[in-house]
Amino acid sequence: DGEAVYLDRALDRPARPGDSHKGQFGGVRVLAGAEGMGGAGLLAARAALAAGAGKVYWHTSPEQAKSALIAQPELMSTELTADYVPDGSIHVLGPGLGQGDTAGALYRRLLLDDHDARGVLDADGLTWLARFPKPVHNWVLTPHPGEAARLLGRSTKDIQSDRCQAAMELSERYQTTVILKGAGSLIAHQGRLYFNHPGDPAMATPGMGDTLAGLIAGLMAQGLGAEEAAKTGAWWHAKLGAQLAQRYRIVLATDLIEAIRLR
Amino acid sequence: DGEAVYLDRALDRPARPGDSHKGQFGGVRVLAGAEGMGGAGLLAARAALAAGAGKVYWHTSPEQAKSALIAQPELMSTELTADYVPDGSIHVLGPGLGQGDTAGALYRRLLLDDHDARGVLDADGLTWLARFPKPVHNWVLTPHPGEAARLLGRSTKDIQSDRCQAAMELSERYQTTVILKGAGSLIAHQGRLYFNHPGDPAMATPGMGDTLAGLIAGLMAQGLGAEEAAKTGAWWHAKLGAQLAQRYRIVLATDLIEAIRLR
Amino acid sequence: DGEAVYLDRALDRPARPGDSHKGQFGGVRVLAGAEGMGGAGLLAARAALAAGAGKVYWHTSPEQAKSALIAQPELMSTELTADYVPDGSIHVLGPGLGQGDTAGALYRRLLLDDHDARGVLDADGLTWLARFPKPVHNWVLTPHPGEAARLLGRSTKDIQSDRCQAAMELSERYQTTVILKGAGSLIAHQGRLYFNHPGDPAMATPGMGDTLAGLIAGLMAQGLGAEEAAKTGAWWHAKLGAQLAQRYRIVLATDLIEAIRLR
Amino acid sequence: DGEAVYLDRALDRPARPGDSHKGQFGGVRVLAGAEGMGGAGLLAARAALAAGAGKVYWHTSPEQAKSALIAQPELMSTELTADYVPDGSIHVLGPGLGQGDTAGALYRRLLLDDHDARGVLDADGLTWLARFPKPVHNWVLTPHPGEAARLLGRSTKDIQSDRCQAAMELSERYQTTVILKGAGSLIAHQGRLYFNHPGDPAMATPGMGDTLAGLIAGLMAQGLGAEEAAKTGAWWHAKLGAQLAQRYRIVLATDLIEAIRLR
Repeated sequence: DGEAVYLDRALDRPARPGDSHKGQFGGVRVLAGAEGMGGAGLLAARAALAAGAGKVYWHTSPEQAKSALIAQPELMSTELTADYVPDGSIHVLGPGLGQGDTAGALYRRLLLDDHDARGVLDADGLTWLARFPKPVHNWVLTPHPGEAARLLGRSTKDIQSDRCQAAMELSERYQTTVILKGAGSLIAHQGRLYFNHPGDPAMATPGMGDTLAGLIAGLMAQGLGAEEAAKTGAWWHAKLGAQLAQRYRIVLATDLIEAIRLR
Repeated sequence: DGEAVYLDRALDRPARPGDSHKGQFGGVRVLAGAEGMGGAGLLAARAALAAGAGKVYWHTSPEQAKSALIAQPELMSTELTADYVPDGSIHVLGPGLGQGDTAGALYRRLLLDDHDARGVLDADGLTWLARFPKPVHNWVLTPHPGEAARLLGRSTKDIQSDRCQAAMELSERYQTTVILKGAGSLIAHQGRLYFNHPGDPAMATPGMGDTLAGLIAGLMAQGLGAEEAAKTGAWWHAKLGAQLAQRYRIVLATDLIEAIRLR
Repeated sequence: DGEAVYLDRALDRPARPGDSHKGQFGGVRVLAGAEGMGGAGLLAARAALAAGAGKVYWHTSPEQAKSALIAQPELMSTELTADYVPDGSIHVLGPGLGQGDTAGALYRRLLLDDHDARGVLDADGLTWLARFPKPVHNWVLTPHPGEAARLLGRSTKDIQSDRCQAAMELSERYQTTVILKGAGSLIAHQGRLYFNHPGDPAMATPGMGDTLAGLIAGLMAQGLGAEEAAKTGAWWHAKLGAQLAQRYRIVLATDLIEAIRLR
Repeated sequence: DGEAVYLDRALDRPARPGDSHKGQFGGVRVLAGAEGMGGAGLLAARAALAAGAGKVYWHTSPEQAKSALIAQPELMSTELTADYVPDGSIHVLGPGLGQGDTAGALYRRLLLDDHDARGVLDADGLTWLARFPKPVHNWVLTPHPGEAARLLGRSTKDIQSDRCQAAMELSERYQTTVILKGAGSLIAHQGRLYFNHPGDPAMATPGMGDTLAGLIAGLMAQGLGAEEAAKTGAWWHAKLGAQLAQRYRIVLATDLIEAIRLR
């Protein structure tokens, strides 16, 4: 049961009517400040900006925040603290988050206490979800096979032996949209299953997942629902990466972020 | 009453005679050091440099100043302090300024005490003006509709229902040149009203206003009067943004800054 | 005795099968934190990333680590400490390493104590090897003539008078793959000798050796053996540099790093 | 008396024989660490690197040094201290030097005590020379008209009224090569006078002088004498700037640095 559809055309990215102003394009907050992993948060924040979010905040350590000034002065930054209270922004929780106390407090606040907080849960965020599982219908999950295995309490090999089944089961168990990453990623949502554009092995490089998480969050900030944002983000991520792979043997996340903004 | 003119051609940017030296092209000082908002000041300073100002200082926190070295080594930086005494430079007061004590002291010094200080008042600078209103004939005001509403004590909806009237009223009340931003910005000065180039919705992104403020300041530093600088800056900002929008779905402020320098 | 072969064609860089993920492409760790020489480590790390390594860590001082966030957010960083225990990663030991206590402790740990640690030994790493010589069959050595002289206890002039002999002797004495740098570098391994692509004098610039070390490490991380990685890395380094020299009178290391990723 | 020659053709930049290595191309040391003026030293160091110097050190504050890692990882940095003892490097003394105690100590060491120290004296370095004048035959002087006036104890207007005379007099009084900057710069050396390429008014921007100083130092490091380096550096600086001015209304120092390396 469940339908399976190939995403074989460009899904429309959010339109911009003639009288737009940035206040209409929502806000993204990337919560990420673990030492030595600052690049992950910065890549996610830059991807959200490139996707067209009206405002992008990077919550991080004061030390890391300074780098945003140079790498992307259009970003705003603020200190990552355990007492952050979610607003209407779309959150990216996971890339560069770590497993420390502040990370745990943020996971509890956003996922367990606040029933309206929304966003993308990736990387360390998925580790927290595996430790404290619950339905997370406001959050897009973007596990790679190892993370999927932890979320389902099975082995990675098991996940890979039937990826369709695993994606569907993740979506059902966590009652939300799931992108199961890997060569040929799958999107599952309420019994529907989508096969993404295959991308290219040149994209098997560090930071690509952080970029996908930020891109999807940027689309959600502009009003796309979780399912639509996941499909659109995953498709463009793979499609643009494959285009870049015609030029580069090794496609880096920063290449992809530049490409997101192109017509 | 009042004439309304479409700015439908390229206004001339300041000429550079054959025997120019940078001392002839004036100085710009961007006063901005609020934590987490450093990008705003940096974008304004870079835009002033790209516009052709002979010398551009960024007054900011020592921490933020270091980023200028890398992002744009042609800038100079100095610590933002409450006891700054204005010189003949053109000031940008607002982007990344904040609402703290130093900001307030600078507003008082430049706007209330010193009748010769000149520049562009934007963002937080306009908030200070709304709190302590006065005629500011030496300063170009660049409010978006929400800031305009605060400056006139009315609602944003009210401003947007008759933008021409609002721009004219702002210019009259504050006795200076006003750019009312939004899709199709308006420039008002002494009973004259100009409709700017429409730009493009791809420009509805963070930092675009900071870039406009710096660009206008850079033009004033080269000798253009407030009205001429506002018209010229607003027109090129919108025109270049629309050109970039043919290439980019999302135009960022850093793209625009690069484009300012092109022939 | 010993055969001599001209590397006169493009050696294949590691293939990427269609179902690749970054976990298959190994890890590189650049151990380098000497004050004022941070660029060397950063260049090596960036080259390893460009070569296609799945994960690249820069072990350095916390101060230097911050720069990675901006220069290359795809890198991860961690503090360089004397108690680092080697894992299965490919190491770059030398560029920006220095001659301090931490450097000495790392040399002892990786070269003297741990018989499985592998990587590339360059620059300061070769100075340590000259002080505490031993067979290092897991490590590619990349000396320039001066370093080769120290490693053989002879004069630089002597090395240059018979470079083939010197390369073979180094390889035999240290029982490993050796690249003897200089105009027309030589690769020696188990009695075999290879003449590299000649490169171009435009490449005689700072940081080129660090880039070569990182490139070779990146290839080893993807599964190439020491001999194959040395040949492939040295050939592409010289070939790409010579291509860039058609455009640039002075080819910089950062140019070369960008070129490594091109198809 | 004295001959006057138009530099109307491309002067040859130093050749690079086929068997070059970076050790043959000399070293440059930029001594510059004044707070808020770090960009000047960084631009000079980058220009020296682009000119082809084999090794470029930036002596500066530890805070500023970190920026080199990101802006140009091929540079090396070390702390600027008053007890620096000159080696055989070519020095850039002036851009971003300041008028503090360390600056004064360095001026005394390099200019008054050490009769072999060589390099380029610019900006603040020329202020020190005006305060403590002496023949400086090892140093190229690069004053703008205001600095020339101070060095000759006359008015700027006076200098500009007969620039040829001023350049010759400066060269004679200080017994060295002098570039008198301004629209149409002049090079004077031992009674010979050269009219430089006119450049373009688009080059009247901050940092251009720092770039010229670094470029000349880079040429001296590669073996050109003071007169030849001054002529070659000034000519290429103006010529490349004029070429860039066909593309840019405002040419920035960073543009020029990139262009220096092109064939």
